[in-house]
Amino acid sequence: MVSSSGSSTTARKLLVVVLLLHAHHGLNDAARKPNIIIMLMDDMGWGDLGVFGNPAKETPNLDRMAREGAQMMDFYAPNPLCSPSRAALLSGRLPIRNGFYTTNYHARCSYTPQEIVGGIPDSEILIPEELSKAGYRSKIVGKWHLGHRPQYLPLKHGFDEYLGAPNCHVGPEDDVKAPNIPVYRDSEMIGRYYEEFPINKKTGESNLTQLYIQEAISFIEKENNAGVPFFLYWAPDSTHSPHYASKTFLGTSQRELYGDAVRELDFGVGQILDKLRSLNIDNNTFVFFSSDNGAALSGGATAGSNGPFLCGKHTTFEGGMREPAIAWWPGKIKQGKISHQLGSLMDLFTTALDIAGIPPPSDRILDGTSLLPALVNDKLDPNKTIFYYRGNEIMAVRRGIYKAHFWTWSEGIRSLHREYCPGSQVKDVTTRDLTNHTASPLLFHLGRDPGEKFKLNPKDEEYKNGLKFIMEAVSEHKRTMVPGQPQLNMCDQGVMNWAPPGCEKLGKCLKALPSNPVKCTWPV
Amino acid sequence: MVSSSGSSTTARKLLVVVLLLHAHHGLNDAARKPNIIIMLMDDMGWGDLGVFGNPAKETPNLDRMAREGAQMMDFYAPNPLCSPSRAALLSGRLPIRNGFYTTNYHARCSYTPQEIVGGIPDSEILIPEELSKAGYRSKIVGKWHLGHRPQYLPLKHGFDEYLGAPNCHVGPEDDVKAPNIPVYRDSEMIGRYYEEFPINKKTGESNLTQLYIQEAISFIEKENNAGVPFFLYWAPDSTHSPHYASKTFLGTSQRELYGDAVRELDFGVGQILDKLRSLNIDNNTFVFFSSDNGAALSGGATAGSNGPFLCGKHTTFEGGMREPAIAWWPGKIKQGKISHQLGSLMDLFTTALDIAGIPPPSDRILDGTSLLPALVNDKLDPNKTIFYYRGNEIMAVRRGIYKAHFWTWSEGIRSLHREYCPGSQVKDVTTRDLTNHTASPLLFHLGRDPGEKFKLNPKDEEYKNGLKFIMEAVSEHKRTMVPGQPQLNMCDQGVMNWAPPGCEKLGKCLKALPSNPVKCTWPV
Repeated sequence: MVSSSGSSTTARKLLVVVLLLHAHHGLNDAARKPNIIIMLMDDMGWGDLGVFGNPAKETPNLDRMAREGAQMMDFYAPNPLCSPSRAALLSGRLPIRNGFYTTNYHARCSYTPQEIVGGIPDSEILIPEELSKAGYRSKIVGKWHLGHRPQYLPLKHGFDEYLGAPNCHVGPEDDVKAPNIPVYRDSEMIGRYYEEFPINKKTGESNLTQLYIQEAISFIEKENNAGVPFFLYWAPDSTHSPHYASKTFLGTSQRELYGDAVRELDFGVGQILDKLRSLNIDNNTFVFFSSDNGAALSGGATAGSNGPFLCGKHTTFEGGMREPAIAWWPGKIKQGKISHQLGSLMDLFTTALDIAGIPPPSDRILDGTSLLPALVNDKLDPNKTIFYYRGNEIMAVRRGIYKAHFWTWSEGIRSLHREYCPGSQVKDVTTRDLTNHTASPLLFHLGRDPGEKFKLNPKDEEYKNGLKFIMEAVSEHKRTMVPGQPQLNMCDQGVMNWAPPGCEKLGKCLKALPSNPVKCTWPV
Repeated sequence: MVSSSGSSTTARKLLVVVLLLHAHHGLNDAARKPNIIIMLMDDMGWGDLGVFGNPAKETPNLDRMAREGAQMMDFYAPNPLCSPSRAALLSGRLPIRNGFYTTNYHARCSYTPQEIVGGIPDSEILIPEELSKAGYRSKIVGKWHLGHRPQYLPLKHGFDEYLGAPNCHVGPEDDVKAPNIPVYRDSEMIGRYYEEFPINKKTGESNLTQLYIQEAISFIEKENNAGVPFFLYWAPDSTHSPHYASKTFLGTSQRELYGDAVRELDFGVGQILDKLRSLNIDNNTFVFFSSDNGAALSGGATAGSNGPFLCGKHTTFEGGMREPAIAWWPGKIKQGKISHQLGSLMDLFTTALDIAGIPPPSDRILDGTSLLPALVNDKLDPNKTIFYYRGNEIMAVRRGIYKAHFWTWSEGIRSLHREYCPGSQVKDVTTRDLTNHTASPLLFHLGRDPGEKFKLNPKDEEYKNGLKFIMEAVSEHKRTMVPGQPQLNMCDQGVMNWAPPGCEKLGKCLKALPSNPVKCTWPV
């Protein structure tokens, strides 16, 4: 701090200034709880990051984040679709427990379009609710997707601040048959997509990501100045179709609009980490980067990439649920660490509580476990199990290096010509129709065959041992499973975002269509 | 060098010692030409390196090499098969020019099994021949594959030293119907594979890679002590089937024997780079790491990986010829550089000459260009073109971000059930039979579609412009093309490695089968 040529008086003066600066941040500053940032991308795939093998290699900030932190190579989304995956992350529980599934059909994925009646139940405890007990202030920036009706919104479930939208930015709508999705600040809407928050579907131009970056940075600065620990859930959505980027980034990638969006998000990651460094709180902030599900391959050449993995979003092959994952916490997590600990977005619930020093709720089964032993102390859990659900069915299970498929399915909505495995065709594996393999599950060794192309032979010892190890976990899982009340069964045109809170002030309330509750159709 | 607390006398003494140490290495030490090391792997794929996206991430030394040097993301083998690719590397010329192709069939790959009559023609100038003009000493360690008859061996073509074998390590043979492949030291055999140089095909154990590492390190030490610039061509072959690894590495990877072999090679790369560092010649040594062709996918689950690319070895899809490539030259090449300069192994010929300050031969067409402008000065060549040949046919051409397929073919030897695109099936693209698209070439944008799954529409402007840019280069290429005399047409059981030079001393000369020259069959 003080050069040897300086006088000891100067040194003492500097020390006083430093102590005063610290005092400004509150009495308990030295012991301030670590901040937590979860960066969750939308439909971004493993293969979209340079450090995970993308040939265009256009993510220098994420690549640097990985070099400075830990790369988790065996990390999963809890579900191959957005809403259930996000609900599972925030609740630390599988969609089958927290209600983010449907029983209208067998083994179908479902989510929260604006016709959905349900949302995150009050009985679920979300990360910010727990963290508030330890004095944290929480903000969500970007996509919520846990229900858009007033009782389901973020500020009703533990968040202190909110800038973003409750549903996907598909559209534009005509505001007569369907309203454009509202953008909220905290408890009230401040405009709608395609209106006050434009996305040009021809050029792909939109300033939304820049807005999300600014909101994140302002929140970090504000809470840091206030001397409170913070939780930021940064969930921008520009890599979900329709893709968008701001003017500065349009046309700057090798990968057209999708790549431009990735570059802007990567820029945002860099801005946020730089802010932590410049505020000198990088050593006291845990940052985790991942994505909600695999890249959506039905978008054709302009979609994301799942690298070497089979199929994409919607499916329970590795391409649908294996996620890029980077944990960053300078001084705590060793630089350049590579972890093969199996992990899931649900672990972030338990990890966040662990970081904040809060015991996990004891009145429920949690599916997440803390990542800190693996990330900080190199203590691996070899029994960790990954369950790949679609709706109410366990499609596949991974334990150790083996993965068993009990059901397979690969075909998207046929009338829309949606292909979830374009260019891939593995006999008996990428079955178009839902196919039951429970009598003789397909087993894969994901170490030598990450692409799930070469089934093990049921006659081999390796198959028998691998399957036995998996079935032990499946039995225990089923024995203790009590499915939650399904939240994604009922749809109603009357519950769409016609008149969200705050619409009166803006003169943006719309005339609702009459209520007409029906079972949601989740077509295959 | 000298701390401020030390006396100037000490400083002067140290300086004298340093100068003496330098003098020991020869008068021109300060101006000694940079050393050159080419590390060429065998059938290793893009997706086998952690830094290029392998989920097992078991290549810490290569990943470090990439961080300290430059990753070339758009780098190609000159051919999807070993012998032609290696001949092209060392001669700087396409196989169609240097003779490493066949005219026995249309558009067939061919190589140098031990029945082959031909080899690298004397008229071809190889890298070590040129480098010797500038005082370099050259060694090849590992696989030669440019012809095994005496006139074709490395020491007849510019290398000063040789430790390795002229053909693949397939076998074991019975030494009656076919001999085991000899291992040479310099001009004479010192034993044979499966005899003096064992490979246990049951356990996969072999010490060959360790031998190749030791040979490399001893050569570096020796030439450095002698004060001469050196060229080391390090070409270990353990990732070519049958895979092998030494006992220390067996069972240490997530990827079985293949992964164990990769780990041992990665270890070797680390040993070699460490040796350069400890000898303090890292700043004066250009090291380039790559592979001879894409991973051989016909090996099933225990083969290498081509990451996000389509198909593998033998094919002219990206999986057959896009290679991992790392250039390393501390102080000259910026750390962590990412280059999108299109490049080819043939560029290493011209690059080596450029490094040594030798003008390229002016009496022939060279297909390689120097990589130094791109690697050292960020000067990219946007017109660089990649030609994807099989035998005597241009199957595909890449220029800029576009790639056109004029012919497609994906099916291996049917009687052997060889699949070159297992699990992949892209309509009109992965055609089983050789299919002519010259009337309307398939065009791909490799930025947004590196997996070659989404053909551009010939009616679109983008297709027309992209194809025009490519056709300009194709016309010029064809206008100036004079094919060399094909070397891989004739086979003869009489020319196998029955009695290689040196066999008498060892008592290992075998009785040759009678000569019976026939046209080689290169079955599809």
